Amino acid sequence: MKIIVDAMGGDNAPRETVLGAVKACEETGIKIILIGRSQEIEPLLNEKNSKNIEVVDAQEVITNEESPVTAIRRKKESSIVKGLGLLKEKKADAMVSAGSTGALMAGGLFILGRFEGVDRPAIAVVIPSKKDPVLLLDIGANSEVKPNNLVQFALMGSIYAREVLKRKDPRVGLLNIGVEEEKGSSVIKSAYSSLKMIKDINFAGNIEARDFFNQNADVVICDGFTGNIFLKTVEGFGMFIFDRLKQEIKKNITYSLGALLLMPAMKAVKSSLDYSEYGGAMFLGLNGVLIKCHGSSDRKAIYNGIKAAKRYAEANINNKLKKSLEINTEGKI
Amino acid sequence: MKIIVDAMGGDNAPRETVLGAVKACEETGIKIILIGRSQEIEPLLNEKNSKNIEVVDAQEVITNEESPVTAIRRKKESSIVKGLGLLKEKKADAMVSAGSTGALMAGGLFILGRFEGVDRPAIAVVIPSKKDPVLLLDIGANSEVKPNNLVQFALMGSIYAREVLKRKDPRVGLLNIGVEEEKGSSVIKSAYSSLKMIKDINFAGNIEARDFFNQNADVVICDGFTGNIFLKTVEGFGMFIFDRLKQEIKKNITYSLGALLLMPAMKAVKSSLDYSEYGGAMFLGLNGVLIKCHGSSDRKAIYNGIKAAKRYAEANINNKLKKSLEINTEGKI
Repeated sequence: MKIIVDAMGGDNAPRETVLGAVKACEETGIKIILIGRSQEIEPLLNEKNSKNIEVVDAQEVITNEESPVTAIRRKKESSIVKGLGLLKEKKADAMVSAGSTGALMAGGLFILGRFEGVDRPAIAVVIPSKKDPVLLLDIGANSEVKPNNLVQFALMGSIYAREVLKRKDPRVGLLNIGVEEEKGSSVIKSAYSSLKMIKDINFAGNIEARDFFNQNADVVICDGFTGNIFLKTVEGFGMFIFDRLKQEIKKNITYSLGALLLMPAMKAVKSSLDYSEYGGAMFLGLNGVLIKCHGSSDRKAIYNGIKAAKRYAEANINNKLKKSLEINTEGKI
Repeated sequence: MKIIVDAMGGDNAPRETVLGAVKACEETGIKIILIGRSQEIEPLLNEKNSKNIEVVDAQEVITNEESPVTAIRRKKESSIVKGLGLLKEKKADAMVSAGSTGALMAGGLFILGRFEGVDRPAIAVVIPSKKDPVLLLDIGANSEVKPNNLVQFALMGSIYAREVLKRKDPRVGLLNIGVEEEKGSSVIKSAYSSLKMIKDINFAGNIEARDFFNQNADVVICDGFTGNIFLKTVEGFGMFIFDRLKQEIKKNITYSLGALLLMPAMKAVKSSLDYSEYGGAMFLGLNGVLIKCHGSSDRKAIYNGIKAAKRYAEANINNKLKKSLEINTEGKI
């Protein structure tokens, strides 16, 4: 197993990306290609690392502020473009980056290409819930979708949940504003009708955002606009709650003492809410295994991302997806 | 000031709705019309109440399970239909209900009608944030919108924020998946172009869900699908966090002691997150002042709803809205 790590992606690059890659290499035996500015990467490595870590030089960096499409077209010497090029040439089994999501999506489409039969790739994340974590897609690749895009998200999500998350017969829910079949936009209603007809999908019907955390489904699908709103609401509201708690705690000494005693429990909750623990975001529907870690990833998040990429690559999803797309969507949607 | 209260709406009706109305009547001097099954309402009242509380009999009840449109058409003797009829005849200044949102919206449209110049009424709620609460609309009346609907939401929200929430020159943000002008669906992009041209709107640009709680805007607008997802994500995630904390606390005695000391602070946070404190949801753009309280409202929530209805009615928003719509949308959108 060999994984390309974009050393230059994210707010803490290259230090944390490199150290995360070193940790993954040391602890799991995964071979790594670190791609980026070699003059910045090499001082972070030592002799022991060098056996299983190869450094590929790429002097350009794509930032979050650039137009993704333009950046991919112009910056041929960037870690993202060169990394995806190596992935396409099958020099490695997967690629991990904490760089710009837009640039990774654009680069994925231009360089790797869509997987045959997939009209629109999607971005998926694993989110904690009361029971097992839930796979949510799309979280931002497609602001607007057609019903058949949602059906393909359901197929891709099902296969990912079965093969990587090891769920038996994963239940797929449609994120909606009510559980009744007639709720939501015309696109959602049409997707609902198709989803309940498809044999390979264990369709759980509509799921309200309020019930997401009760894990009534293993996979929840939606358009990228809705998924992004959901995910960022969770992030923002989580920060807001803990911030409010902190403010209250400061108000008197009894509260401060209580907080001190409760600190490990609070930290456990906070960390259980942290979806970067689950390895970041997966691009589904591309010709290659690509994982995007959170922009603020530390070495641990990069390490988790590399482990997730390994599981994703081992599951060999696209072969199973190909069959499923042929059987389930040919002329039916 | 006279306010109609739907005694039969919500999970705790009629007991809590009646007791909330009694409290409002006693503490604020508001005159109340309680509408519903008189045989259930009257035993909850006493002589002292009866001076300022009038009971109007309505034997039918509309439930959340019914089709709103059918229920409004068929159940002429329901508290919602009869209450809205009284509001239309100007027998009162406002109406408060904890009943079905769908039935209230359908009834509002059929019985009260849209306010002249408003193409689609919206439902708004006030949500806590780090600084002042934020007005969010639409949260569910319109799953799909056109750009000019969003512009009208912005005008209605601005006037509500100015006149009822007493914000000076309220900032209006557009809920989106990025702050850049080119983000989001074609509808949102088109609304963005219009919003920045309109003089009466202090447009704050796009607001990401993650930044909602930082109160970068006084009013946040979106389609009813997105608003509903946002609101229910907040509800569901809030429950999930407090549930996780409870589980952790149970794990050892130090945590339990800490939690005990911290309890009042936690309760304060929980209650500051409770948007029913702010009086429920407002229907904007109807010919009449209509407020919907949460279905699980207790007497305090009903009381807060009645006080919010009073402020809303006193602000005489529709007169100001009329002028604003004439000036700002005539031939411009």
